[in-house]
Amino acid sequence: MHFTVKEAIEVLERTPQTLEHFLSGLSDGWLRCNEGEGTWNVSEVIGHLIEGEKNNWIPRLEFILQEGESKPFPSFDRYSHLNGKPERTIEQKLLEFKSLRTLNISKLQKLVEPEARLEVTGAHPAFGVVKVRELISTWVVHDLTHMAQIVRVMAERYRADVGPWHQYLGILKK
Amino acid sequence: MHFTVKEAIEVLERTPQTLEHFLSGLSDGWLRCNEGEGTWNVSEVIGHLIEGEKNNWIPRLEFILQEGESKPFPSFDRYSHLNGKPERTIEQKLLEFKSLRTLNISKLQKLVEPEARLEVTGAHPAFGVVKVRELISTWVVHDLTHMAQIVRVMAERYRADVGPWHQYLGILKK
Repeated sequence: MHFTVKEAIEVLERTPQTLEHFLSGLSDGWLRCNEGEGTWNVSEVIGHLIEGEKNNWIPRLEFILQEGESKPFPSFDRYSHLNGKPERTIEQKLLEFKSLRTLNISKLQKLVEPEARLEVTGAHPAFGVVKVRELISTWVVHDLTHMAQIVRVMAERYRADVGPWHQYLGILKK
Repeated sequence: MHFTVKEAIEVLERTPQTLEHFLSGLSDGWLRCNEGEGTWNVSEVIGHLIEGEKNNWIPRLEFILQEGESKPFPSFDRYSHLNGKPERTIEQKLLEFKSLRTLNISKLQKLVEPEARLEVTGAHPAFGVVKVRELISTWVVHDLTHMAQIVRVMAERYRADVGPWHQYLGILKK
């Protein structure tokens, strides 16, 4: 086990600015490409990260600390960002993500004091008993998984363009 | 096919600053973890990107434009960054990567004028005829593949910490 609150926050606080530097100002070609029918483009991934800040991580953390294992926390709709939102620029979305994340990190820091709270358990609606420390670790890895998705979606766009080099590029293997 | 020089440069110019914002100041725990024996940690990945700027992309591009298919360009040692370099901080490495990349983008812009040069062919030592446009596309996807590697290596560190959530996290599937 490697988790510490300090090191988890190191990643959580870097994700929005990292994505901002990578994605702001990119051509629509990069932002609107996807991996085929039913897959998300880069802009939609940011929409999903925003939903997580609003409805997933901190609400669940608060729920566990309040309810313990007494009742399962509500499930999170992983597709809600696709429902009828007015279209916004990537810069607007990244700004919203950054503001929400900053606020949530300060909430997180308060919620895990004292540190014994990391061991509090709750009831996940699908797979049962989970700990606060597992929820926060998952928040970090969830950031990483969607950063991986973003670069994978972008790489896919050049699958044919790289010609014979595709065999050397792990990201194009699937 | 999607490649354009303009859009390729959009990614190439963002990679160093993106990695700088993500990795500067991270704990050694994040920077020194790897995926097991014989795999690279985050700091070694940046070393590899630096080697690419020095010995791979622009030198190969110049070689193709000079020699055409008449002789194969020299192969690139993908492990050279592991050989006896004095240890440097991640910030020093990121700074070197950024400086080299800036210089190489300005070289690239000169080398692909006029645009007909994108169709010039060279001889890859392993798989034969390749085009300039394929080499530049590969440079872009190579950035993306190593960004994917960095977040995957970091996610691996929390494999046990996420508890039952591992089944929802694509980045932990292997």
